[in-house]
Amino acid sequence: MINTEMMGLGNKRSVIRDIFEYGNQRAKIVGRENIFDFSLGNPNVPAPAKVAEVIEKISKMDPVAVHGYTSAQGSESCRKAMADDLNRRFGTSYRPENFYMTCGAAASLIITLRALVGSIDDEVIVFAPFFPEYQMWITSGAGAKCVIIPAQIEDFQIDFAALEEKLSANTKALIVNSPNNPCGVVYSEQTIARLAALLEEKSAEYGHPIYLISDEPYREIVFDGQKIPFIAPAYRNTIVCYSFSKSLSMPGERIGYILVPDCVENAADVYAAVCGAGRSLGYVCAPSMFQMIAAECAGLTSDISVYETNRKLLLDGLRSFGYTCVAPGGAFYLFPRSLEPDAGAFCEKAKKYDLLLVPGDGFGAPGHFRISYCVQTETIERALPLFKKLAEDYGVI
Amino acid sequence: MINTEMMGLGNKRSVIRDIFEYGNQRAKIVGRENIFDFSLGNPNVPAPAKVAEVIEKISKMDPVAVHGYTSAQGSESCRKAMADDLNRRFGTSYRPENFYMTCGAAASLIITLRALVGSIDDEVIVFAPFFPEYQMWITSGAGAKCVIIPAQIEDFQIDFAALEEKLSANTKALIVNSPNNPCGVVYSEQTIARLAALLEEKSAEYGHPIYLISDEPYREIVFDGQKIPFIAPAYRNTIVCYSFSKSLSMPGERIGYILVPDCVENAADVYAAVCGAGRSLGYVCAPSMFQMIAAECAGLTSDISVYETNRKLLLDGLRSFGYTCVAPGGAFYLFPRSLEPDAGAFCEKAKKYDLLLVPGDGFGAPGHFRISYCVQTETIERALPLFKKLAEDYGVI
Repeated sequence: MINTEMMGLGNKRSVIRDIFEYGNQRAKIVGRENIFDFSLGNPNVPAPAKVAEVIEKISKMDPVAVHGYTSAQGSESCRKAMADDLNRRFGTSYRPENFYMTCGAAASLIITLRALVGSIDDEVIVFAPFFPEYQMWITSGAGAKCVIIPAQIEDFQIDFAALEEKLSANTKALIVNSPNNPCGVVYSEQTIARLAALLEEKSAEYGHPIYLISDEPYREIVFDGQKIPFIAPAYRNTIVCYSFSKSLSMPGERIGYILVPDCVENAADVYAAVCGAGRSLGYVCAPSMFQMIAAECAGLTSDISVYETNRKLLLDGLRSFGYTCVAPGGAFYLFPRSLEPDAGAFCEKAKKYDLLLVPGDGFGAPGHFRISYCVQTETIERALPLFKKLAEDYGVI
Repeated sequence: MINTEMMGLGNKRSVIRDIFEYGNQRAKIVGRENIFDFSLGNPNVPAPAKVAEVIEKISKMDPVAVHGYTSAQGSESCRKAMADDLNRRFGTSYRPENFYMTCGAAASLIITLRALVGSIDDEVIVFAPFFPEYQMWITSGAGAKCVIIPAQIEDFQIDFAALEEKLSANTKALIVNSPNNPCGVVYSEQTIARLAALLEEKSAEYGHPIYLISDEPYREIVFDGQKIPFIAPAYRNTIVCYSFSKSLSMPGERIGYILVPDCVENAADVYAAVCGAGRSLGYVCAPSMFQMIAAECAGLTSDISVYETNRKLLLDGLRSFGYTCVAPGGAFYLFPRSLEPDAGAFCEKAKKYDLLLVPGDGFGAPGHFRISYCVQTETIERALPLFKKLAEDYGVI
């Protein structure tokens, strides 16, 4: 009678949420400090101090001005701040009119997908490993087909042979996510250049643009002094989906943007479709106060040195115990191979030591597991001996 | 190539927005103070002082706790505050589990519609005059048919003969909005009781529940000491869509809720479908900081006496000049008959006096125009002689 598809989506608890709940139950038995919960991607580093300063300042401003509607695409001043920030950091020349403020990355993606997908034959390509909700937004959200490119597990760059095989005249868009959730890998400049060249070639061959949707919530969280991977300048038909959730450690506040550069083919139409999709999906405007906060804090990041410390500790430790893991260039995830082919069974066994890990199957990469290391460094120090015992149980050490 | 329906939605500027922009242009010529802009429903009364107090308090709290994800349905503490507030004021016995926090009324409505609509044959009934976006959310958003019941223009209560004619086995839901945008009318207790009885009867006849979606952003804005029109207890299959936009004067912050009472048929399934629809539409959680603010400020309202003053001044004035207007019991709108049958032409003529009014056609009620009186009282005082001149032009005075 009611919408059974929506009911199914609502009833199907996510694997991650299940593990998190399991941890809460176990914590009651063995104590919170003895649970090593690496399941959730909730930043544990506080927002930059400036965020609290701006909030305090806003509490003294005219409430009618602060809390009123902004235009649907976001306030002019906020969009100008977004353009100025990118232009300053990346030498681009974006205008406020290229930006559409959103309620975070999920909203950015579903709005963009709904704006672009024009037919049930349209295909959207995703690269494993990928954020599990991509599939749902592409199919149930936007009504397109989701085409999966299997993971290139040696380095989690793009398997171009597999990609070429799957590109077709129905390819409307691809989603890339660098730095990546769940594997933390950053696409190399070669990968991006090769992808751009291939998409240019195929767009010409099919006679229509193939859009590259760049999902960039982890853009600023990169390590070893790497260049921030801002993909848009490399390929003209790139649409950027951004969120301040991770860079400013405010995932609950739902603030981000869609960037449609002028060079995108039919940019005005695409931007109009973004506005229309936002309207159709009930997004009246992005939260007005957090538009002001984003405007003042764009370009800042939380103290990501904590993530860098955690990454090194965990990666070095796991490798020394015999785990195989691609070194992540960013985000706050590791995605090692599980010590048996069935990652689900492996993660079950890890529970013996109260190590809470997420199997890679939901991310489209069986045989791997995800570790979210946005936790206290001390938690990692105490967990390492347990990862060692687990490896010993499997006889790999 | 891209989604032309979304492009159309994005390109079609709303009539209200057009009028607002016209006002901005005119203001440059004749001065802002000489523009009488009654087009926008943006509250002009500041949020209650408590809102700023809570914001200031939050600026000193742990940012990780404040800005982190909440669960998708909203934090337990926020949902408990919502239940406590309604239970205290209306003698109900809701539980936190009945609430799903949203990004405002638009999100509440589109999520509810998408949760309920299970087939392209499903019909959703709306009563003219209605908020124009209803139609779009029902059709393009949820994929159902929108069935319009014409306005009963004598009192803007429900035309039950017309309703009975349009109810069918395909009726999935009705949307009611009391106090109403654009006419300000509050449904009488008789109207609600008669509607409830009819829907009970028809649900039994068709063998399935007909859901009543009660869109209540103006619930607390009622005048003359009237009882607040909380409809849910009157009909078991009522789903409440609420927003704090108007009661707390914070429309830009996007915070509201969906209430699925336990007595709703298949309540657990409906709630699950609400969760699934929210997920599918990219609503990860309602803004976390404003969940905290809503929890602390639920039950408060801005100073609505300003609206009451404005209403009396305007209603008495217009009637004395020969305008016909149903007295609104709430919200901050008047919806008089235009002085010629073509409301668009009438509103064009009103521009001669820089009176910016919205034709009723978009609200499904031709021959009327909307006045948003959430403006300074002084603006109304200065506008009244111009409304008089306009009536003189038409020879009605």
